Amino acid sequence: MRLYPECVPCMLKQALEMAKLVTHDRKVLERVLRAGLGILQSERWNVPQPIVAFKLFRKVSELIGVEDPYREIKRQSNRFVMNLYDELEGIIESSKDKLMTAIKLSIAGNIIDYGTGRPFDVDETINRVLRTDFTINHYKLLREDIEKAETIVIFGDNAGEAVFDKLLIEQLGDKKITYFVRAHPFINDVTVIDAEEISLEDIAEIKEVRFGDWDRGMSIDEAVRFAKKSDLIISKGQGNFELLSGYDAKIYFLFIVKCDVIARAVNAPIGSQILLLNQKYR
Amino acid sequence: MRLYPECVPCMLKQALEMAKLVTHDRKVLERVLRAGLGILQSERWNVPQPIVAFKLFRKVSELIGVEDPYREIKRQSNRFVMNLYDELEGIIESSKDKLMTAIKLSIAGNIIDYGTGRPFDVDETINRVLRTDFTINHYKLLREDIEKAETIVIFGDNAGEAVFDKLLIEQLGDKKITYFVRAHPFINDVTVIDAEEISLEDIAEIKEVRFGDWDRGMSIDEAVRFAKKSDLIISKGQGNFELLSGYDAKIYFLFIVKCDVIARAVNAPIGSQILLLNQKYR
Repeated sequence: MRLYPECVPCMLKQALEMAKLVTHDRKVLERVLRAGLGILQSERWNVPQPIVAFKLFRKVSELIGVEDPYREIKRQSNRFVMNLYDELEGIIESSKDKLMTAIKLSIAGNIIDYGTGRPFDVDETINRVLRTDFTINHYKLLREDIEKAETIVIFGDNAGEAVFDKLLIEQLGDKKITYFVRAHPFINDVTVIDAEEISLEDIAEIKEVRFGDWDRGMSIDEAVRFAKKSDLIISKGQGNFELLSGYDAKIYFLFIVKCDVIARAVNAPIGSQILLLNQKYR
Repeated sequence: MRLYPECVPCMLKQALEMAKLVTHDRKVLERVLRAGLGILQSERWNVPQPIVAFKLFRKVSELIGVEDPYREIKRQSNRFVMNLYDELEGIIESSKDKLMTAIKLSIAGNIIDYGTGRPFDVDETINRVLRTDFTINHYKLLREDIEKAETIVIFGDNAGEAVFDKLLIEQLGDKKITYFVRAHPFINDVTVIDAEEISLEDIAEIKEVRFGDWDRGMSIDEAVRFAKKSDLIISKGQGNFELLSGYDAKIYFLFIVKCDVIARAVNAPIGSQILLLNQKYR
């Protein structure tokens, strides 16, 4: 899915927010903005938004002199949700449809936006998500595909959210799971450090995907080629939807609609819970 | 007040919103954004935000081929508040402190953001503003200065809001009033057409101020020089606060805090009602 015009000012705002995690020096912030304006202008806009954002955010990292400004926020997110692990597992185990509950919680993990730094009521969010139906709901198809699958690939999204995915993986049964994290820092997206912090390697093989030039990880093309060899692909979050929905691959997209651009793309209001299989594979 | 880093993505977003009033053609919107990125990059940022925004929005007008895309929104705003005129006048006339009530209503006019195109509950807004105290309150000083003044200059802000200012002017007593409107279209700011639509010329002399190169109106410097010859200056809205607060002139600023940048500048939360006399004149 190529970026929308609305993504352009939004990415610039995100770049500024990122810099402000590290400094409030006006000169540095103005340097970040001017560099950002230049990058946004020189890039082609016929690619998914995260591809452009990656180049922009790398430049910001360079200018503020901090490789991963969200590191501490991600660490806190991981710890916070790990402390809820037993409670969340209890909710799943005591529910009628454990898989459905685990999927709903995994989507709840996506609604909690750790990037904003605002406090949030996890109990309230979880209760709401469990009570609310999916706006787009291909659960029956996903359930059938999970039952048949021996190998499953999951594209992870945010730190913290990945703990919810761990709970989901435990409900998938005895399968070989591969979990993709980002090869590089990208806002509060899950990286291999986060996977280690929550011991994700105990139940899944961790692989890395990169959004552009980076010295580690598979390109998105390579990651999709790899994923297509498995029996089932699950993609978490808006960013992965933007990156992966254009590929000819059977992918279940699990996310919460968080902005107008995605709301228009999937024709569902902001806040909707989406469990979407791409059209041609339904 | 020079622009803050946060203003840069915000102006770009406003430029896009402005273009979208006229077209949703992706090619045109991308052309608007690329031109906008270029203008923001080439401009110096040591000036008030509206000065940069003016250049940006003029370019947008040119690219979308519409001189005043907010014209119809402004017309509707004027008509809408004019239909409330008698009711609002009744509220003022039946109140204990008519001047205070008229000032509060004039600020209420500023909180109602016509630019967004969203529906709003005017009664609720008016009731809330009348019930709520100013967060910064130099009313006593303003009241004394109004009593002493023979000539008053008001810098107007938005269309629709100007109708509330008309009600305020009627409470100022027998003075010579000059009301500044924008010499050119600038979002939903009040222009001479709006002043005519609400018959403002019946109770005030209308003058025009421009934010940059334009074939009509006074420059901001000229307008301030003119205003300083009067006995009292009143400035409406955030934009005028940004433009005028840097001048060595005794000005009463009446506005609602609508964004983080202004909230920080006046040290009051978003939504606050401000009646502020610049420090050195208190």
